[in-house]
Amino acid sequence: MADNKKGIFITMEGPDGSGKTTQIHLLSEFLKKNNYDVIITREPGGTNIGEAVREILLNPEFKEMDPTTELLLYTAARAQLMAQVIRPALEAGKAVISDRFIDSALVYQGIARGLGVDNVYNVNQYAVQGCMPDMTFLLDLTAEEGIKRKKNQKELDRMEQEKLSFHRQVSDGYRSLADKYPERITKIDATLPIADIYAIIEAQVQALI
Amino acid sequence: MADNKKGIFITMEGPDGSGKTTQIHLLSEFLKKNNYDVIITREPGGTNIGEAVREILLNPEFKEMDPTTELLLYTAARAQLMAQVIRPALEAGKAVISDRFIDSALVYQGIARGLGVDNVYNVNQYAVQGCMPDMTFLLDLTAEEGIKRKKNQKELDRMEQEKLSFHRQVSDGYRSLADKYPERITKIDATLPIADIYAIIEAQVQALI
Repeated sequence: MADNKKGIFITMEGPDGSGKTTQIHLLSEFLKKNNYDVIITREPGGTNIGEAVREILLNPEFKEMDPTTELLLYTAARAQLMAQVIRPALEAGKAVISDRFIDSALVYQGIARGLGVDNVYNVNQYAVQGCMPDMTFLLDLTAEEGIKRKKNQKELDRMEQEKLSFHRQVSDGYRSLADKYPERITKIDATLPIADIYAIIEAQVQALI
Repeated sequence: MADNKKGIFITMEGPDGSGKTTQIHLLSEFLKKNNYDVIITREPGGTNIGEAVREILLNPEFKEMDPTTELLLYTAARAQLMAQVIRPALEAGKAVISDRFIDSALVYQGIARGLGVDNVYNVNQYAVQGCMPDMTFLLDLTAEEGIKRKKNQKELDRMEQEKLSFHRQVSDGYRSLADKYPERITKIDATLPIADIYAIIEAQVQALI
């Protein structure tokens, strides 16, 4: 924990369709019962400026977007979310749950887009200024299963329209991050029943608070 | 010049109201007469994605924008402009004139916003990947004169609404960059008559082409 940090900061990661939203709401209820003020944020977005950036990032018409541009836009939205929402909430002792955070950048831009995990990490450290999650849950899902789940839901955005090979790199990239940061990241099989996944999350968070 | 660069890349810098647009059009005509295909770009913007980013940057409602977010958004627009327009044009032997480029970032975010010239330079090098202007003209104007000229024109955008002290830092910052990069940057008194300013620019560009 950084010195000026009193709240708790939990991030939920995993491919599209892995069930992050469901688990975030269950976890939020648990934290509220434990007397936390809970702030839920999503990336990219979570602020008015970030939502405007999100619209650019997910616009299916912007197929010409350069990978470096994509990285910088995601990082810009993250910098705003950190300055405006996450850091003030943590300083006020609140619990922050973020739907995606820096690990998404490392996986999507660093690995799947091939910009390099170290490059992406360095640009991101500038944006988050050392404020990393206390705990991260990775809902682990194969690319094939993730796409199958998502296709039943709605029209696909620019990221979701990527080829299967891209989504495979995402799934594999997430697993390699979980291996790299075992103390921070808990990997959970996303094909388990919702209640079973949540039981693992609650046990870990119970130990943290 | 980078090895793969065949065209010429000229940037026009200076505070708002310093007359950049007028000089760019005069220079463009001169280059066309000298058989160059001329591409004029503006920052932030110059691509569909960049224009969308520009709308966020200049939106007067986004007063809560964090300086780091601002830096990353400008850099994102620049990365897209470089990848999609400037680099392909230079590789095709064209002349590119950009209304603002990296020096604007060094001055506005590095000096006036206080993020540090070195920090801003490093993030930008990642975006432009070593492709720097062959020649830069700085239209030098005091902050007071710049604001006076601009106020007669139109409604002010988010950057233009900044305090006088901010615009003073911009003017002073530009002068310090001209001192730092004397080989690349030509500083010209923007209160001179338009024809006199242009004569200096044309003489320099004539020597380049």
